Amino acid sequence: MTRQELIHEIRTKRSFLCVGLDTDLKKVPKHLLDSEDPIFEFNKAIIDATKDYCVAYKPNTAFYECHGPKGWESLKKTIDYIPDNIFTIADAKRGDIGNTSRYYADTFFDYLKADSVTVAPYMGEDSVSPFLEYENNWVILLALTSNKGALDFQMTVDHENKPLFKKVLAKSQEWGTPENLMFVVGATRAEGIGEVRKAAPDNFFLVPGVGAQGGSLEDVADYGWNQDCGLLVNSSRGIIYASQEHDFAQKAGEAAKALQTQMSEILDTKNF
Amino acid sequence: MTRQELIHEIRTKRSFLCVGLDTDLKKVPKHLLDSEDPIFEFNKAIIDATKDYCVAYKPNTAFYECHGPKGWESLKKTIDYIPDNIFTIADAKRGDIGNTSRYYADTFFDYLKADSVTVAPYMGEDSVSPFLEYENNWVILLALTSNKGALDFQMTVDHENKPLFKKVLAKSQEWGTPENLMFVVGATRAEGIGEVRKAAPDNFFLVPGVGAQGGSLEDVADYGWNQDCGLLVNSSRGIIYASQEHDFAQKAGEAAKALQTQMSEILDTKNF
Repeated sequence: MTRQELIHEIRTKRSFLCVGLDTDLKKVPKHLLDSEDPIFEFNKAIIDATKDYCVAYKPNTAFYECHGPKGWESLKKTIDYIPDNIFTIADAKRGDIGNTSRYYADTFFDYLKADSVTVAPYMGEDSVSPFLEYENNWVILLALTSNKGALDFQMTVDHENKPLFKKVLAKSQEWGTPENLMFVVGATRAEGIGEVRKAAPDNFFLVPGVGAQGGSLEDVADYGWNQDCGLLVNSSRGIIYASQEHDFAQKAGEAAKALQTQMSEILDTKNF
Repeated sequence: MTRQELIHEIRTKRSFLCVGLDTDLKKVPKHLLDSEDPIFEFNKAIIDATKDYCVAYKPNTAFYECHGPKGWESLKKTIDYIPDNIFTIADAKRGDIGNTSRYYADTFFDYLKADSVTVAPYMGEDSVSPFLEYENNWVILLALTSNKGALDFQMTVDHENKPLFKKVLAKSQEWGTPENLMFVVGATRAEGIGEVRKAAPDNFFLVPGVGAQGGSLEDVADYGWNQDCGLLVNSSRGIIYASQEHDFAQKAGEAAKALQTQMSEILDTKNF
């Protein structure tokens, strides 16, 4: 999906919501566990119920890999099932030396056919650039994450008082463009989002941490907005586990709709 | 595998060689391509031919994932096939927020039954520590990697002129011990290995980059040695693609034996 197509979807659907498909068999309603592929059945129902309210889905590969080959089948079926006008994010946080990252890029773009993949920056340019060579596919690079451990290294300042995440933002913009490079910026650090926006005015941000992790949607929009919206705000648990009973899909749809309604108001306020 | 068991294997086999199973269908001898699982058939022959000369195997997950569920089956079968007295490294470079890293740990330790997994440090403590909670399993944390991109962030110095990789070494030793935490230290930066050894005197290092990537075994041993050897030196392409003909396994065995012979001499010199 191109940047223009993504922006078009945000305008049309009045939403910049990403639904995180962190599907955990321990939390899936019990009546699904007898089906042949409970993870896919769950995701299918969640997608059907939420697809009108979101512009992206983000399965995190950890929740699929732990089931071995069967988990990869569920992941593949899930991405295949997502409508073409919805942006797909393989949240995989990969990164390796150049010739090896190329195989990861093959995996996520050629095999799984995801629009984008999250990538960890620690190994530098040659670990990231193989993912940037695919037309209409995206790297979503970890910049400032939403977890406690983000403080350990991402905030380390250099002799000019510049934190590491800003170095990642500056360097990586030499490798990719706003057409193929987004950044992960956690909602739990609202002022941080403002800092990242200053350092990367045109790139889209994938913002996890709203809801269960405590970030506020209004703060994210206040600090992260750019002329093209520039935000994909992710919610996982708050939507997909809104209920763990038979009505799970309906409740997920309602939770997604509630967020979409808030987002629609924000888009209105911004005259977008 | 425990640290004492690993040291015992190094002493007994007179080797600190790790064979990298970066198995690429484009480089596998053509006569294997007709078999049901060419990747596993190749690995099986390589393991049979090299197992007397090495103390560790390191499949890189990128080469397996790109084949989807079938690739994960090949990876599982490969790890199952490796003899119990040989240390297994899932070179996966994972890392995510705490509750998600736990699923990766399940994948590599419970499902695949690898002894260890490589982990990327960017997301900090809660992304690493779930892997440290398994008894007799190991984290091998990226510190100073062998690729060109290592210069982009790992060498970034803070306000006290301390490079990021040293901060990673210092912080992570608060989370793990030499009994469950190793570091990836590239052989292409021999003086770097010495710096890392000073900062982490007791931990084992996984050292890629000898051979195809240009690092020298003597330099690695000079700079990286500690009282317990403290080194696992990886070679991938130089061994597994020593020949791409029918004699590939024999040539791999010879290449592994040649490295083991050099290592044996080093161990003798060190009176180990």
